[in-house]
Amino acid sequence: MKYKFIKKKINYNGSELKPLYAYVHHQLHGDSIVAFAGSCDVTLDHMVDAEDFVVGAKIKADCMLHFIVEMFGQNLMTAVSLQRLLVSIVQSHLMGAGVTLIRKGDDLYLKNKKLSVSIASCSAVSSQIHLGINIENGGTPVPTCALKDFSIEPVKFATAIMEKFTSEYISIVEATQKVRPLQ
Amino acid sequence: MKYKFIKKKINYNGSELKPLYAYVHHQLHGDSIVAFAGSCDVTLDHMVDAEDFVVGAKIKADCMLHFIVEMFGQNLMTAVSLQRLLVSIVQSHLMGAGVTLIRKGDDLYLKNKKLSVSIASCSAVSSQIHLGINIENGGTPVPTCALKDFSIEPVKFATAIMEKFTSEYISIVEATQKVRPLQ
Amino acid sequence: MKYKFIKKKINYNGSELKPLYAYVHHQLHGDSIVAFAGSCDVTLDHMVDAEDFVVGAKIKADCMLHFIVEMFGQNLMTAVSLQRLLVSIVQSHLMGAGVTLIRKGDDLYLKNKKLSVSIASCSAVSSQIHLGINIENGGTPVPTCALKDFSIEPVKFATAIMEKFTSEYISIVEATQKVRPLQ
Amino acid sequence: MKYKFIKKKINYNGSELKPLYAYVHHQLHGDSIVAFAGSCDVTLDHMVDAEDFVVGAKIKADCMLHFIVEMFGQNLMTAVSLQRLLVSIVQSHLMGAGVTLIRKGDDLYLKNKKLSVSIASCSAVSSQIHLGINIENGGTPVPTCALKDFSIEPVKFATAIMEKFTSEYISIVEATQKVRPLQ
Amino acid sequence: MKYKFIKKKINYNGSELKPLYAYVHHQLHGDSIVAFAGSCDVTLDHMVDAEDFVVGAKIKADCMLHFIVEMFGQNLMTAVSLQRLLVSIVQSHLMGAGVTLIRKGDDLYLKNKKLSVSIASCSAVSSQIHLGINIENGGTPVPTCALKDFSIEPVKFATAIMEKFTSEYISIVEATQKVRPLQ
Amino acid sequence: MKYKFIKKKINYNGSELKPLYAYVHHQLHGDSIVAFAGSCDVTLDHMVDAEDFVVGAKIKADCMLHFIVEMFGQNLMTAVSLQRLLVSIVQSHLMGAGVTLIRKGDDLYLKNKKLSVSIASCSAVSSQIHLGINIENGGTPVPTCALKDFSIEPVKFATAIMEKFTSEYISIVEATQKVRPLQ
Repeated sequence: MKYKFIKKKINYNGSELKPLYAYVHHQLHGDSIVAFAGSCDVTLDHMVDAEDFVVGAKIKADCMLHFIVEMFGQNLMTAVSLQRLLVSIVQSHLMGAGVTLIRKGDDLYLKNKKLSVSIASCSAVSSQIHLGINIENGGTPVPTCALKDFSIEPVKFATAIMEKFTSEYISIVEATQKVRPLQ
Repeated sequence: MKYKFIKKKINYNGSELKPLYAYVHHQLHGDSIVAFAGSCDVTLDHMVDAEDFVVGAKIKADCMLHFIVEMFGQNLMTAVSLQRLLVSIVQSHLMGAGVTLIRKGDDLYLKNKKLSVSIASCSAVSSQIHLGINIENGGTPVPTCALKDFSIEPVKFATAIMEKFTSEYISIVEATQKVRPLQ
Repeated sequence: MKYKFIKKKINYNGSELKPLYAYVHHQLHGDSIVAFAGSCDVTLDHMVDAEDFVVGAKIKADCMLHFIVEMFGQNLMTAVSLQRLLVSIVQSHLMGAGVTLIRKGDDLYLKNKKLSVSIASCSAVSSQIHLGINIENGGTPVPTCALKDFSIEPVKFATAIMEKFTSEYISIVEATQKVRPLQ
Repeated sequence: MKYKFIKKKINYNGSELKPLYAYVHHQLHGDSIVAFAGSCDVTLDHMVDAEDFVVGAKIKADCMLHFIVEMFGQNLMTAVSLQRLLVSIVQSHLMGAGVTLIRKGDDLYLKNKKLSVSIASCSAVSSQIHLGINIENGGTPVPTCALKDFSIEPVKFATAIMEKFTSEYISIVEATQKVRPLQ
Repeated sequence: MKYKFIKKKINYNGSELKPLYAYVHHQLHGDSIVAFAGSCDVTLDHMVDAEDFVVGAKIKADCMLHFIVEMFGQNLMTAVSLQRLLVSIVQSHLMGAGVTLIRKGDDLYLKNKKLSVSIASCSAVSSQIHLGINIENGGTPVPTCALKDFSIEPVKFATAIMEKFTSEYISIVEATQKVRPLQ
Repeated sequence: MKYKFIKKKINYNGSELKPLYAYVHHQLHGDSIVAFAGSCDVTLDHMVDAEDFVVGAKIKADCMLHFIVEMFGQNLMTAVSLQRLLVSIVQSHLMGAGVTLIRKGDDLYLKNKKLSVSIASCSAVSSQIHLGINIENGGTPVPTCALKDFSIEPVKFATAIMEKFTSEYISIVEATQKVRPLQ
């Protein structure tokens, strides 16, 4: 798994959650995690989460840190499990910075203030995860908290999270390659 | 996923990591997590982790809290991902009790003192996870810490962890059932 | 697996065979079978069965009882096997009501009169089955029979079939969770 | 899928449910269904069904008709679905001979009298089904009925069932090869 | 696996790499390989290979021999492995005709002159391979060689390749059906 | 994929085709190909190929070059396809050294003289391939040819083959990670 922080601002509208996004747009071949900053405004057309679609949810923020993970040869159950682990890694990392958040599934909260949005799905060729973390609180449809509230610098934070997730992913793959079958 | 705390003391020797363990021995049918207390002494014959086998590692403790998870229809990559999430849930839970541990892959440490052992593997019919957490420090081959050091009562702790893991598992399965395919 | 009879009349044109149909339109989350009554007129654009597409078949009826099954984490071979079992359940049920039909693959016949149409396919996130059973004979391109010919009341019939299929599906899943691997 | 009736009497003890049974013992390569007559007495050691194992069930009969199906490249969920369909084919066939049985999962009953035993499981290379149907009632641990009660001749019956199941299997495989993906 | 040479000239633009192509357009049901002659000009819209897409590659030739393979129930890793084997079969066949080519992945070269283009991908229902081999050198964006240079008659060549690939495919499937599981 | 030539002589009896062989015995973690020289004498107990088992074939040679490939997360169909490709790579390589062999499935022949034996199978955790190539002709049950006949030095040859197969494997995996899904 490779990782890359994209310095250019990219406004996320959901069309980025498409097979080979990192390869076509950022030259990362194979399993990858990329991060970039930009607004978030997912159109109904690109809403992957039917739960949001059904209620016409607004997935919006003026300034978010976006992570997009792509994995090949993994199914959706693995992708969602790894999504939870990615969110858990963010929680642990912020804990290390003195910020105590609660994780409910794939969401992080400071009391009732939501820090993040996330979704995972798959196509016939790969699985993908989007995780968006508020950099600032502007433009969100619900009460939120943001990295700015915690004085967390987004680029350094993004890089640390990508390093940790990449290590974890590689170590998980390795762990599947050193056990005997059960009988 | 069902869960059950087994009150009877069971000494774990590795033979418990066998398909249908919870069903055959504890009447839990389907996806399950069971917990029990007992010593740990994994014989070479039942050592699933080839890394341990190669170095002739001793996986031993006089008094451990054992968790055994079994999942049907899931592959090994998912099982290892969920193993990490289970360990992460333990870490978070202990954090809530004021104990700050470091997670390295599937191990938990208080500085250089190891709290746990864990392995995940699969047969043709299911995947399984073993997670053992020291209740006391006696009989371990490396420097360890234990629930007793933190004044954590094992039964209540086990039940809380099983409840959280069961909820997480169900919510992961549900998350795979509400997303549109990517294209 | 959940089931639900939709009281509202819905005219089926093939666009209903789309991932998350029951969730998005009828609030049923997860594995499900829904039934509703309405006409049937599948447009070429939504014709999933290439056999029909190639010959420009007309899949039409003025009044049909429609079943839509959706299953997550199951492949197409399982979906088609379960489609056959669903049709077989309908056959047995009608036999119990004194109607002796012949099943040829996924079709039911009274002599040369066709009672039903059916198809199963899959996307990257789920598998789906459509089974349409004539309520009346009007508007069909071939000789047909219909529930009305047998004085079968559609709503009660649909509910009985959904109950039986749901039980069968759950018992099949359970049967995969109680066997030892072969060696 | 190939089929073959084995004329030699073979007493079934469960060891026959082993990958490549039809190939090694009866020269049938690939997907297959074989049938033979003989007693049934499954030893605990070869008991694949943990439900039976747990209660120490006796799976016995003096004279049974045995079917063994083996399928390559299919998972356990498909195998159990096809097991149900096989039992359903037997039910339909006997119905055509004037015998009305009730199917409960993978069992057939004449009122409270059991006609059959069945199990399906898998190894890393294939899935297998065993279906045993009483030819006579002797030696069974529960109230049973048998082909003899219905004046059904076992060899002809076995051949008809194998023909029907083979056709159904081939037509199911073909049905998976003529549908467009859903989107 | 069935094979067929299509006598009608068909200009390939990439839209042919679509599930059920051989079935819908050439009446070949199930696993298949078809061949036909025609120009090659893949539009960006139908470019499956993101590597080509990213650099805006031109996949063009005035006169090519096209092979399209479709396989059901096989994953992308198998499809790419078989693509390499197909190209290897072409290499061996031409070697037998006195033409020594170098294979680099899925490409064949006579020194720096490229003979072929190829891609493999999958949908939710099947995997497909396209292999195009220059019949003549006109209209290609890079230095090429062609069957005409080697005095190879395309129809006979295509038939021989399809025969060999079909035999190989069948023998591979058979090889998966005669081995014991490893333990 | 990693590769390693084991200098120590190892006599192959079939027990080496066991999950994690390269890891446990030669410290190669993950996808791997290892080679070593030694006699070949596969006991019935370790005969994975039921075809050989059925006829009581002797798989013997006094001095062979053995390759053992292990791949994780790949199914048996992929393993057999890659086995063929491995044999094809050997054929091409020897062609480059002036030796023209015929490949029939997974066997290589010089006219009627057999150069090699091979098998591929899988467990619940990995797939494995054994390819044995005669270094000398002694002790074989059928007419054979051997590397010595062609003045091929085994160690250099083994290393070249392992390099080529490793490159091919990596490039196949990469090829699965750069294509758009078909629709």
